[in-house]
Amino acid sequence: MEPTERTTLRRLPERGSHDTAAIYAVVDEALICHVGFVDTHGHPVVIPTIHTRVGDALYFHGSPASRMLRRMKDGVEVCVTVTIVDGLVLARSGFHHSMNYRSVVAFGVAEPVTDAAEQRRVFDALVDHVVPGRAEAVRPMTDKERRGTVLLRLPLTEASFKSRTGPPGDEPEDYELPIWAGVLPVRTTYGPPRPDPASAVDLPVPDHVLER
Amino acid sequence: MEPTERTTLRRLPERGSHDTAAIYAVVDEALICHVGFVDTHGHPVVIPTIHTRVGDALYFHGSPASRMLRRMKDGVEVCVTVTIVDGLVLARSGFHHSMNYRSVVAFGVAEPVTDAAEQRRVFDALVDHVVPGRAEAVRPMTDKERRGTVLLRLPLTEASFKSRTGPPGDEPEDYELPIWAGVLPVRTTYGPPRPDPASAVDLPVPDHVLER
Repeated sequence: MEPTERTTLRRLPERGSHDTAAIYAVVDEALICHVGFVDTHGHPVVIPTIHTRVGDALYFHGSPASRMLRRMKDGVEVCVTVTIVDGLVLARSGFHHSMNYRSVVAFGVAEPVTDAAEQRRVFDALVDHVVPGRAEAVRPMTDKERRGTVLLRLPLTEASFKSRTGPPGDEPEDYELPIWAGVLPVRTTYGPPRPDPASAVDLPVPDHVLER
Repeated sequence: MEPTERTTLRRLPERGSHDTAAIYAVVDEALICHVGFVDTHGHPVVIPTIHTRVGDALYFHGSPASRMLRRMKDGVEVCVTVTIVDGLVLARSGFHHSMNYRSVVAFGVAEPVTDAAEQRRVFDALVDHVVPGRAEAVRPMTDKERRGTVLLRLPLTEASFKSRTGPPGDEPEDYELPIWAGVLPVRTTYGPPRPDPASAVDLPVPDHVLER
Protein backbone atom coordinates (compact mmCIF):
# COMPACT_ATOMS: atom_id res chain seq x y z
CA MET A 1 0.00 0.00 0.00
CA GLU A 2 1.07 3.63 -0.41
CA PRO A 3 2.91 5.33 2.48
CA THR A 4 1.28 8.42 3.97
CA GLU A 5 2.80 11.23 5.99
CA ARG A 6 2.47 9.25 9.21
CA THR A 7 3.39 5.81 7.87
CA THR A 8 6.56 7.03 6.15
CA LEU A 9 9.44 5.22 7.86
CA ARG A 10 11.94 7.77 9.10
CA ARG A 11 14.21 5.78 11.42
CA LEU A 12 15.97 2.68 10.06
CA PRO A 13 13.79 2.64 6.90
CA GLU A 14 15.70 -0.44 5.72
CA ARG A 15 13.89 -2.37 8.46
CA GLY A 16 10.45 -1.44 7.17
CA SER A 17 8.09 -1.56 4.22
CA HIS A 18 4.53 -0.94 3.13
CA ASP A 19 4.26 -4.35 1.54
CA THR A 20 0.70 -5.56 1.90
CA ALA A 21 1.65 -9.25 2.10
CA ALA A 22 4.11 -8.57 4.94
CA ILE A 23 1.51 -6.50 6.79
CA TYR A 24 -1.20 -9.16 6.40
CA ALA A 25 1.18 -11.95 7.51
CA VAL A 26 1.91 -10.23 10.85
CA VAL A 27 -1.73 -9.38 11.47
CA ASP A 28 -2.82 -12.93 10.67
CA GLU A 29 -0.20 -14.61 12.87
CA ALA A 30 -0.58 -12.47 15.99
CA LEU A 31 -3.14 -13.58 18.57
CA ILE A 32 -3.83 -10.04 19.80
CA CYS A 33 -3.16 -6.42 18.96
CA HIS A 34 -3.03 -3.15 20.90
CA VAL A 35 -5.51 -0.39 20.03
CA GLY A 36 -4.62 3.20 20.89
CA PHE A 37 -7.08 6.07 20.95
CA VAL A 38 -7.47 9.45 22.61
CA ASP A 39 -10.11 9.47 25.35
CA THR A 40 -12.68 12.19 25.95
CA HIS A 41 -10.22 13.97 28.27
CA GLY A 42 -7.49 14.02 25.60
CA HIS A 43 -5.42 11.26 27.22
CA PRO A 44 -3.95 8.36 25.22
CA VAL A 45 -5.36 4.92 26.07
CA VAL A 46 -3.97 1.58 24.83
CA ILE A 47 -6.08 -1.58 25.15
CA PRO A 48 -5.15 -5.14 24.17
CA THR A 49 -7.79 -6.92 22.12
CA ILE A 50 -8.44 -9.82 19.77
CA HIS A 51 -8.71 -8.97 16.09
CA THR A 52 -9.10 -10.69 12.76
CA ARG A 53 -8.49 -9.71 9.17
CA VAL A 54 -10.99 -10.42 6.40
CA GLY A 55 -9.91 -9.13 3.00
CA ASP A 56 -8.43 -5.67 3.33
CA ALA A 57 -9.88 -4.79 6.73
CA LEU A 58 -9.26 -5.47 10.40
CA TYR A 59 -12.22 -6.30 12.62
CA PHE A 60 -12.78 -5.71 16.34
CA HIS A 61 -15.67 -6.87 18.47
CA GLY A 62 -16.95 -6.95 22.00
CA SER A 63 -19.51 -5.76 24.47
CA PRO A 64 -21.47 -2.58 23.79
CA ALA A 65 -20.25 -1.52 27.27
CA SER A 66 -16.58 -1.53 26.16
CA ARG A 67 -15.14 1.96 26.45
CA MET A 68 -12.75 1.28 23.58
CA LEU A 69 -15.51 0.14 21.21
CA ARG A 70 -17.78 3.03 22.17
CA ARG A 71 -14.97 5.48 21.47
CA MET A 72 -14.17 3.77 18.18
CA LYS A 73 -17.85 3.91 17.21
CA ASP A 74 -17.71 7.67 17.83
CA GLY A 75 -15.40 7.81 14.82
CA VAL A 76 -12.15 8.76 16.56
CA GLU A 77 -8.81 7.97 14.97
CA VAL A 78 -7.18 4.78 16.22
CA CYS A 79 -3.68 3.37 15.98
CA VAL A 80 -3.56 -0.43 15.90
CA THR A 81 -0.18 -2.00 16.63
CA VAL A 82 0.55 -5.69 16.16
CA THR A 83 3.84 -7.07 17.44
CA ILE A 84 5.46 -10.51 17.24
CA VAL A 85 8.73 -11.06 19.12
CA ASP A 86 10.94 -13.52 17.22
CA GLY A 87 14.16 -13.52 19.20
CA LEU A 88 16.38 -12.02 21.87
CA VAL A 89 19.46 -10.51 20.25
CA LEU A 90 22.38 -10.98 22.63
CA ALA A 91 25.34 -8.83 21.66
CA ARG A 92 28.78 -8.57 23.22
CA SER A 93 27.86 -5.16 24.65
CA GLY A 94 24.66 -4.23 26.44
CA PHE A 95 24.40 -1.28 24.06
CA HIS A 96 23.89 -3.54 21.03
CA HIS A 97 21.37 -5.87 22.65
CA SER A 98 18.13 -5.88 20.72
CA MET A 99 15.12 -7.99 19.77
CA ASN A 100 14.17 -9.60 16.52
CA TYR A 101 10.54 -8.79 15.81
CA ARG A 102 7.90 -8.13 13.20
CA SER A 103 5.40 -5.35 13.78
CA VAL A 104 2.62 -3.48 12.03
CA VAL A 105 1.31 -0.02 12.86
CA ALA A 106 -2.02 0.89 11.24
CA PHE A 107 -4.00 4.12 11.44
CA GLY A 108 -7.60 4.86 10.61
CA VAL A 109 -11.19 5.32 11.66
CA ALA A 110 -13.36 2.28 12.28
CA GLU A 111 -16.93 1.90 11.13
CA PRO A 112 -19.74 -0.27 12.53
CA VAL A 113 -20.66 -3.46 10.69
CA THR A 114 -24.43 -3.84 10.71
CA ASP A 115 -25.11 -6.28 7.87
CA ALA A 116 -26.13 -9.60 9.41
CA ALA A 117 -24.37 -11.75 6.80
CA GLU A 118 -21.11 -9.83 7.18
CA GLN A 119 -21.43 -10.02 10.96
CA ARG A 120 -21.79 -13.81 10.84
CA ARG A 121 -18.87 -14.19 8.44
CA VAL A 122 -16.60 -12.02 10.57
CA PHE A 123 -17.60 -13.60 13.89
CA ASP A 124 -16.64 -16.98 12.40
CA ALA A 125 -13.36 -15.47 11.19
CA LEU A 126 -12.64 -14.15 14.69
CA VAL A 127 -13.06 -17.65 16.14
CA ASP A 128 -10.98 -19.21 13.35
CA HIS A 129 -8.27 -16.57 13.79
CA VAL A 130 -7.64 -17.90 17.31
CA VAL A 131 -7.96 -21.59 16.43
CA PRO A 132 -8.30 -22.40 12.71
CA GLY A 133 -11.18 -24.79 12.13
CA ARG A 134 -12.89 -23.96 15.41
CA ALA A 135 -15.83 -21.96 14.01
CA GLU A 136 -17.51 -24.90 12.32
CA ALA A 137 -17.13 -27.03 15.47
CA VAL A 138 -19.09 -24.77 17.82
CA ARG A 139 -22.77 -24.09 18.43
CA PRO A 140 -23.91 -21.47 15.86
CA MET A 141 -24.37 -17.89 17.02
CA THR A 142 -27.91 -16.88 17.92
CA ASP A 143 -29.45 -13.69 16.59
CA LYS A 144 -29.57 -12.40 20.16
CA GLU A 145 -25.81 -12.95 20.57
CA ARG A 146 -25.12 -11.36 17.18
CA ARG A 147 -27.23 -8.29 17.93
CA GLY A 148 -25.67 -7.99 21.38
CA THR A 149 -22.11 -7.76 20.05
CA VAL A 150 -20.52 -4.65 18.62
CA LEU A 151 -18.53 -5.30 15.44
CA LEU A 152 -16.25 -2.68 13.89
CA ARG A 153 -14.29 -2.64 10.62
CA LEU A 154 -11.02 -0.75 10.19
CA PRO A 155 -9.92 -0.54 6.55
CA LEU A 156 -6.23 -1.52 6.33
CA THR A 157 -5.23 1.29 3.99
CA GLU A 158 -2.68 3.22 6.06
CA ALA A 159 -0.18 0.85 7.63
CA SER A 160 3.51 0.06 7.80
CA PHE A 161 5.56 -3.04 8.55
CA LYS A 162 8.81 -3.11 10.45
CA SER A 163 11.11 -5.93 11.45
CA ARG A 164 14.53 -6.83 12.73
CA THR A 165 16.13 -10.15 11.82
CA GLY A 166 19.52 -11.77 12.13
CA PRO A 167 22.47 -11.81 14.51
CA PRO A 168 23.68 -8.92 16.68
CA GLY A 169 25.60 -6.04 15.17
CA ASP A 170 28.53 -5.34 17.49
CA GLU A 171 31.34 -2.82 17.44
CA PRO A 172 34.13 -4.13 15.15
CA GLU A 173 36.64 -4.45 18.01
CA ASP A 174 34.16 -6.40 20.20
CA TYR A 175 34.03 -9.50 17.96
CA GLU A 176 37.32 -10.66 19.45
CA LEU A 177 35.99 -10.59 23.02
CA PRO A 178 35.42 -13.93 24.79
CA ILE A 179 31.70 -13.16 25.20
CA TRP A 180 29.06 -15.49 23.76
CA ALA A 181 26.77 -13.66 21.32
CA GLY A 182 23.87 -14.77 19.19
CA VAL A 183 20.12 -14.98 19.05
CA LEU A 184 17.78 -16.81 21.40
CA PRO A 185 14.66 -17.55 19.33
CA VAL A 186 11.31 -16.71 20.96
CA ARG A 187 8.25 -18.79 20.14
CA THR A 188 4.60 -18.88 21.11
CA THR A 189 3.73 -22.48 21.93
CA TYR A 190 0.65 -24.26 23.18
CA GLY A 191 0.53 -26.51 26.22
CA PRO A 192 -1.56 -29.67 26.55
CA PRO A 193 -5.29 -28.82 26.21
CA ARG A 194 -7.15 -28.62 29.54
CA PRO A 195 -10.70 -29.94 29.15
CA ASP A 196 -13.38 -27.92 30.91
CA PRO A 197 -13.99 -29.74 34.23
CA ALA A 198 -17.66 -28.75 33.97
CA SER A 199 -18.19 -30.80 30.80
CA ALA A 200 -21.25 -33.02 31.07
CA VAL A 201 -19.90 -35.30 28.36
CA ASP A 202 -16.46 -36.88 27.93
CA LEU A 203 -15.12 -35.99 24.48
CA PRO A 204 -11.79 -36.50 22.74
CA VAL A 205 -9.72 -33.39 22.02
CA PRO A 206 -10.57 -32.49 18.41
CA ASP A 207 -7.90 -32.24 15.71
CA HIS A 208 -8.32 -28.48 15.26
CA VAL A 209 -7.25 -28.03 18.91
CA LEU A 210 -4.39 -30.55 18.76
CA GLU A 211 -3.08 -28.96 15.56
CA ARG A 212 -2.99 -25.38 16.92
CA MET B 1 -1.75 1.54 44.71
CA GLU B 2 -4.78 3.83 44.85
CA PRO B 3 -7.19 3.84 41.88
CA THR B 4 -7.69 7.16 40.08
CA GLU B 5 -10.53 8.33 37.86
CA ARG B 6 -8.97 6.66 34.83
CA THR B 7 -7.72 3.49 36.49
CA THR B 8 -11.03 2.72 38.18
CA LEU B 9 -12.21 -0.59 36.71
CA ARG B 10 -15.70 -0.16 35.33
CA ARG B 11 -16.27 -3.30 33.25
CA LEU B 12 -15.88 -6.70 34.93
CA PRO B 13 -14.19 -5.16 38.00
CA GLU B 14 -13.92 -8.65 39.51
CA ARG B 15 -11.24 -9.35 36.89
CA GLY B 16 -9.07 -6.45 38.02
CA SER B 17 -7.22 -4.88 40.89
CA HIS B 18 -4.75 -2.17 41.82
CA ASP B 19 -2.53 -4.60 43.68
CA THR B 20 1.07 -3.46 43.32
CA ALA B 21 2.51 -6.99 43.48
CA ALA B 22 0.21 -8.16 40.66
CA ILE B 23 1.11 -5.11 38.57
CA TYR B 24 4.85 -5.58 39.10
CA ALA B 25 4.66 -9.32 38.30
CA VAL B 26 3.14 -8.67 34.86
CA VAL B 27 5.56 -5.87 34.06
CA ASP B 28 8.54 -8.00 35.13
CA GLU B 29 7.49 -11.09 33.17
CA ALA B 30 6.61 -9.42 29.86
CA LEU B 31 9.40 -9.01 27.30
CA ILE B 32 7.88 -5.89 25.76
CA CYS B 33 5.15 -3.32 26.30
CA HIS B 34 3.17 -0.95 24.09
CA VAL B 35 3.47 2.80 24.66
CA GLY B 36 0.65 5.07 23.51
CA PHE B 37 0.91 8.82 23.12
CA VAL B 38 -0.74 11.61 21.18
CA ASP B 39 1.44 12.96 18.38
CA THR B 40 1.90 16.61 17.47
CA HIS B 41 -1.09 16.37 15.09
CA GLY B 42 -3.36 15.02 17.81
CA HIS B 43 -3.33 11.44 16.51
CA PRO B 44 -2.83 8.43 18.78
CA VAL B 45 0.35 6.43 18.18
CA VAL B 46 1.21 3.05 19.74
CA ILE B 47 4.80 1.77 19.63
CA PRO B 48 6.14 -1.55 20.96
CA THR B 49 9.25 -1.23 23.08
CA ILE B 50 11.45 -2.94 25.64
CA HIS B 51 11.05 -1.79 29.23
CA THR B 52 12.28 -2.65 32.67
CA ARG B 53 11.12 -1.92 36.18
CA VAL B 54 13.45 -0.77 38.94
CA GLY B 55 11.73 -0.09 42.23
CA ASP B 56 8.48 1.77 41.65
CA ALA B 57 9.22 3.06 38.16
CA LEU B 58 9.23 1.83 34.58
CA TYR B 59 12.17 2.75 32.36
CA PHE B 60 12.37 3.22 28.58
CA HIS B 61 15.43 3.83 26.48
CA GLY B 62 16.61 4.23 22.94
CA SER B 63 18.04 6.48 20.30
CA PRO B 64 17.69 10.27 20.64
CA ALA B 65 16.18 10.09 17.14
CA SER B 66 13.22 7.99 18.34
CA ARG B 67 9.97 9.90 17.80
CA MET B 68 8.39 8.15 20.78
CA LEU B 69 11.21 9.10 23.14
CA ARG B 70 11.35 12.68 21.87
CA ARG B 71 7.61 13.01 22.45
CA MET B 72 7.89 11.46 25.91
CA LYS B 73 10.73 13.85 26.74
CA ASP B 74 8.40 16.71 25.80
CA GLY B 75 6.37 15.69 28.85
CA VAL B 76 3.26 14.38 27.13
CA GLU B 77 0.99 11.88 28.87
CA VAL B 78 1.62 8.27 27.97
CA CYS B 79 -0.34 5.07 28.42
CA VAL B 80 1.81 1.97 28.82
CA THR B 81 0.07 -1.36 28.33
CA VAL B 82 1.66 -4.70 29.12
CA THR B 83 -0.13 -7.88 28.06
CA ILE B 84 0.63 -11.56 28.62
CA VAL B 85 -1.62 -14.11 26.89
CA ASP B 86 -1.97 -17.23 29.05
CA GLY B 87 -4.51 -19.32 27.18
CA LEU B 88 -7.10 -19.69 24.45
CA VAL B 89 -10.52 -20.18 26.02
CA LEU B 90 -12.51 -22.50 23.77
CA ALA B 91 -16.20 -22.46 24.65
CA ARG B 92 -19.07 -24.44 23.18
CA SER B 93 -20.32 -21.30 21.42
CA GLY B 94 -18.25 -18.80 19.46
CA PHE B 95 -19.86 -16.09 21.57
CA HIS B 96 -18.20 -17.34 24.77
CA HIS B 97 -14.75 -17.83 23.29
CA SER B 98 -12.19 -15.72 25.12
CA MET B 99 -8.56 -15.54 26.16
CA ASN B 100 -6.91 -15.97 29.51
CA TYR B 101 -4.51 -13.11 30.04
CA ARG B 102 -2.86 -10.77 32.50
CA SER B 103 -2.50 -7.10 31.61
CA VAL B 104 -1.43 -3.82 33.12
CA VAL B 105 -2.44 -0.35 31.96
CA ALA B 106 -0.35 2.50 33.40
CA PHE B 107 -0.67 6.25 32.86
CA GLY B 108 1.74 9.06 33.53
CA VAL B 109 4.38 11.46 32.34
CA ALA B 110 7.95 10.27 31.92
CA GLU B 111 11.02 12.21 33.00
CA PRO B 112 14.61 12.04 31.71
CA VAL B 113 17.20 10.19 33.79
CA THR B 114 20.45 12.15 33.70
CA ASP B 115 22.36 10.83 36.73
CA ALA B 116 25.21 8.66 35.45
CA ALA B 117 24.99 6.12 38.28
CA GLU B 118 21.24 5.67 37.82
CA GLN B 119 21.73 5.40 34.06
CA ARG B 120 24.29 2.60 34.51
CA ARG B 121 22.09 0.76 37.01
CA VAL B 122 19.04 0.95 34.74
CA PHE B 123 20.89 0.01 31.55
CA ASP B 124 22.09 -3.13 33.37
CA ALA B 125 18.51 -3.78 34.53
CA LEU B 126 17.25 -3.45 30.94
CA VAL B 127 19.71 -6.13 29.80
CA ASP B 128 18.90 -8.37 32.76
CA HIS B 129 15.16 -7.92 32.17
CA VAL B 130 15.55 -9.65 28.81
CA VAL B 131 17.98 -12.34 30.01
CA PRO B 132 18.61 -12.47 33.76
CA GLY B 133 22.35 -12.59 34.47
CA ARG B 134 23.32 -11.19 31.08
CA ALA B 135 24.45 -7.73 32.21
CA GLU B 136 27.52 -8.93 34.10
CA ALA B 137 28.57 -11.12 31.17
CA VAL B 138 28.86 -8.35 28.58
CA ARG B 139 31.41 -5.66 27.81
CA PRO B 140 30.70 -2.68 30.11
CA MET B 141 28.96 0.36 28.64
CA THR B 142 31.22 3.19 27.55
CA ASP B 143 30.52 6.77 28.54
CA LYS B 144 29.92 7.58 24.88
CA GLU B 145 27.28 4.85 24.63
CA ARG B 146 25.66 5.99 27.87
CA ARG B 147 25.55 9.64 26.82
CA GLY B 148 24.22 8.66 23.40
CA THR B 149 21.20 6.82 24.80
CA VAL B 150 18.01 8.47 26.00
CA LEU B 151 16.71 7.04 29.28
CA LEU B 152 13.28 7.92 30.67
CA ARG B 153 11.59 7.06 33.95
CA LEU B 154 7.82 6.65 34.32
CA PRO B 155 6.72 6.46 37.96
CA LEU B 156 4.34 3.50 38.39
CA THR B 157 1.79 5.35 40.48
CA GLU B 158 -1.34 5.20 38.33
CA ALA B 159 -1.90 1.69 37.05
CA SER B 160 -4.39 -1.15 37.05
CA PHE B 161 -4.15 -4.92 36.64
CA LYS B 162 -6.67 -7.07 34.82
CA SER B 163 -6.80 -10.79 34.14
CA ARG B 164 -8.97 -13.65 33.04
CA THR B 165 -8.30 -17.17 34.28
CA GLY B 166 -10.03 -20.53 34.22
CA PRO B 167 -12.31 -22.51 31.93
CA PRO B 168 -14.94 -21.10 29.56
CA GLY B 169 -18.25 -19.82 30.88
CA ASP B 170 -20.92 -21.23 28.60
CA GLU B 171 -24.69 -20.89 28.50
CA PRO B 172 -26.22 -23.39 30.96
CA GLU B 173 -27.95 -25.39 28.23
CA ASP B 174 -24.76 -25.66 26.14
CA TYR B 175 -22.87 -27.85 28.63
CA GLU B 176 -24.78 -30.88 27.34
CA LEU B 177 -23.65 -30.33 23.74
CA PRO B 178 -21.15 -32.81 22.27
CA ILE B 179 -18.61 -30.03 21.69
CA TRP B 180 -15.13 -30.18 23.24
CA ALA B 181 -14.48 -27.15 25.45
CA GLY B 182 -11.55 -26.11 27.58
CA VAL B 183 -8.42 -24.05 27.62
CA LEU B 184 -5.37 -24.31 25.37
CA PRO B 185 -2.47 -22.87 27.42
CA VAL B 186 -0.26 -20.33 25.62
CA ARG B 187 3.42 -20.09 26.53
CA THR B 188 6.42 -18.06 25.46
CA THR B 189 9.28 -20.49 24.94
CA TYR B 190 12.86 -20.18 23.76
CA GLY B 191 14.38 -22.17 20.91
CA PRO B 192 17.95 -23.47 20.79
CA PRO B 193 20.42 -20.54 20.95
CA ARG B 194 21.90 -19.56 17.59
CA PRO B 195 25.53 -18.45 17.97
CA ASP B 196 26.53 -15.40 15.97
CA PRO B 197 28.19 -16.78 12.80
CA ALA B 198 30.55 -13.78 12.88
CA SER B 199 32.08 -14.84 16.19
CA ALA B 200 35.88 -14.78 16.03
CA VAL B 201 36.08 -17.17 18.98
CA ASP B 202 34.25 -20.45 19.64
CA LEU B 203 32.55 -20.25 23.04
CA PRO B 204 30.12 -22.50 24.91
CA VAL B 205 26.58 -21.18 25.41
CA PRO B 206 26.61 -19.65 28.90
CA ASP B 207 24.24 -20.81 31.64
CA HIS B 208 22.33 -17.50 31.74
CA VAL B 209 21.32 -18.10 28.11
CA LEU B 210 20.52 -21.80 28.56
CA GLU B 211 18.43 -21.04 31.64
CA ARG B 212 16.26 -18.34 29.98
